[in-house]
Amino acid sequence: MAIIVQKFGGTSLANAQKIRSAAKRVIKTVENGYGVVVVASARGKQTDRLIADALELNPNPPKREMDQLISTGEQQSVSLFAMALDAMGYDAISFTGGQIRMITDGAFTRAQIKSIDAKRIHSQLESGKIVIVAGFQGIDEQENITTLGRGGSDTTAVALAAALEAEQCEIYTDVDGIYTTDPRIFEDAVKMDQICYDEMLEMASLGASVMHIRAVGFGKRYNVKIHVRNSANENVGTIITSEESEMEGVVVTGATVQKDMAKIGLVGVDNVPGNAAKVFAHLAKAKVVVNDIIQTEISDEKANLSFMIGISDLDAAKQAVDEIRGEVNCEGVFIRDDIAEVSVVGVGMRTHYGVAEKMFGALAQARVNIDSITTSEIRISCAVDEDQATDALKAVCLAFDLDKPAQERTKG
Amino acid sequence: MAIIVQKFGGTSLANAQKIRSAAKRVIKTVENGYGVVVVASARGKQTDRLIADALELNPNPPKREMDQLISTGEQQSVSLFAMALDAMGYDAISFTGGQIRMITDGAFTRAQIKSIDAKRIHSQLESGKIVIVAGFQGIDEQENITTLGRGGSDTTAVALAAALEAEQCEIYTDVDGIYTTDPRIFEDAVKMDQICYDEMLEMASLGASVMHIRAVGFGKRYNVKIHVRNSANENVGTIITSEESEMEGVVVTGATVQKDMAKIGLVGVDNVPGNAAKVFAHLAKAKVVVNDIIQTEISDEKANLSFMIGISDLDAAKQAVDEIRGEVNCEGVFIRDDIAEVSVVGVGMRTHYGVAEKMFGALAQARVNIDSITTSEIRISCAVDEDQATDALKAVCLAFDLDKPAQERTKG
Repeated sequence: MAIIVQKFGGTSLANAQKIRSAAKRVIKTVENGYGVVVVASARGKQTDRLIADALELNPNPPKREMDQLISTGEQQSVSLFAMALDAMGYDAISFTGGQIRMITDGAFTRAQIKSIDAKRIHSQLESGKIVIVAGFQGIDEQENITTLGRGGSDTTAVALAAALEAEQCEIYTDVDGIYTTDPRIFEDAVKMDQICYDEMLEMASLGASVMHIRAVGFGKRYNVKIHVRNSANENVGTIITSEESEMEGVVVTGATVQKDMAKIGLVGVDNVPGNAAKVFAHLAKAKVVVNDIIQTEISDEKANLSFMIGISDLDAAKQAVDEIRGEVNCEGVFIRDDIAEVSVVGVGMRTHYGVAEKMFGALAQARVNIDSITTSEIRISCAVDEDQATDALKAVCLAFDLDKPAQERTKG
Repeated sequence: MAIIVQKFGGTSLANAQKIRSAAKRVIKTVENGYGVVVVASARGKQTDRLIADALELNPNPPKREMDQLISTGEQQSVSLFAMALDAMGYDAISFTGGQIRMITDGAFTRAQIKSIDAKRIHSQLESGKIVIVAGFQGIDEQENITTLGRGGSDTTAVALAAALEAEQCEIYTDVDGIYTTDPRIFEDAVKMDQICYDEMLEMASLGASVMHIRAVGFGKRYNVKIHVRNSANENVGTIITSEESEMEGVVVTGATVQKDMAKIGLVGVDNVPGNAAKVFAHLAKAKVVVNDIIQTEISDEKANLSFMIGISDLDAAKQAVDEIRGEVNCEGVFIRDDIAEVSVVGVGMRTHYGVAEKMFGALAQARVNIDSITTSEIRISCAVDEDQATDALKAVCLAFDLDKPAQERTKG
């Protein structure tokens, strides 16, 4: 029997009516002859409420207990989902992460999946049941409940699809799929029919929030066909896959903008091996997530070092830099807290020239000043003034035809 | 290390302040040198809310899924309780029923405990932790979550106390202990210092709701000293124990009244072996709980059969009787739906005479008519008109000095 995994997020399960409507979609798939495994998140604002309950008792709750607490949200969802299916005349059985031996490491609140026991699910599917699995959670070797952190339910769904060798993993959400860029910023953004894992990984790491980077990474590793679609309609969404064929000739598939960034520069650091490592090790200890590191030599003795961070990490980063600057003989520190990053992504860049020029040209024409540039094999990012971020994104989108379906775009 | 089990009900954990106050009590016991195992129920109205969520989706939810759902209430309580203790500087760890291998049979919503793994708890206590266990729940051999039904958290607490060989099991509630009778009906009722298991079992089966009969039964079987006390003060409550010594000379320890009863009589049933069995098997099939069966021969050929039921079972009982009456050749059926039952309980009755006379005398003096009488070794029950129930209870309480502490009562 071919298997489809269907993941429903919290907003798709926020009340009885929405649960019923998700259940109907599952039944339709069952009637089409598939074995269906549902992955459910916690309903609506349940997790937020539980976190508030916890913080009222303890501003810094032990992580193990936090996982024990918030994992109840998904457990409630799956049992209610099974009840809804039962009321519609379909046999269903719900499982917690522990009950299907979703074994993780012991890193509470951000655990990594180590293994899944597909046997119990297979045997339930074979007996004709619809299987409902709690997303976001697992257990460690000592049977402590763990949670997977941000994007956890997506990760559960993709991991289950891999373990069950499912035909595809459908991620139901409140948008029609993955867009060429954020439609809230560039309203002419178009939905993609398809995107490859590497592009989606770049998009996700640049803040495209529809799919979490961990889930996409799992998909790539186990070659799981992921279908991101809208739970409110029947439209085909976006397929995330290893195939790049359809995008041949299309150089840029998507663009992103990350606001609320800051840039820190260390000027005149001693240009000796190990100094950059010292700085970033110290930032890591302060739990600052660092992006887009640029190092440039200014003389034989001195170099400049700059990097981007989220604005919420700025205070921690400042303090860390102040602590370490003496050790690396840094002559000065500059900080920009009014910066944003505009990026374009596309595997086509690997084989096409002129993408950078086109991007810089579009920004120049829009009178956007570029603070700094970083690139990867399939991405170009420009740091720009935050108040020019929206204009910058629009200019880039138009330059690369991201308001048109892939097949109608000017080929690179 | 001596161990004390402390069980807190839902009202004692209804909000952050109450959880903190329960946590303080636990800490006090820890500071007195005990290893403490806390058993927690679901907070306040959590379970009711979850049941309402379930019924909105399915008027007849599958029991397995119901247990999967409502067991989350206790899981939330235990993690929050552990967080509260952590915030006060005490190491705590919470466990679900499954995590301490509280193995039950597979009777969802009313499972029976089969075994408990005390090892995990002992090792946590030995490492200096306070252990918080979810009441009311376990898992069956297939790791399905089960719940124990009414009185489940009390049962968990007493069973744990037995498995851990705890010094005592403290049941925290919103009253000061077990009273000689219900103080809402007889305001001069006094709190008992001590009551033995058999008396408590009779009281509980007669509707005294402070302790559930299953928990008391467990206590008797494993000789667990149960201390019922108020979570809102420091008063000593009531000890439930095997010891009867202190009550020597006291014949009646408590009295109860059960309102909302009905009585059904089958008149002129064929007096042949097996007829009563037929009737009660049929009632059991209709899930009617039957009390106080009285059978009297009226001739060699015919007998009368009567029994008491809760008024909520009356319709089901009527129908069951109508279905079976032909088979036992019953000449007539009478029904009283305006009946109550007043009972006195006391192990002293085993060795003392005159209790029945005293009770009947008190009722006669209060001009209460007795419809029928049933007795056990340590209990006498009289069915009376429902509108005389309160007067009847008061008269009986005064006759047996139940408004006075045990040591001040007239000896039997």
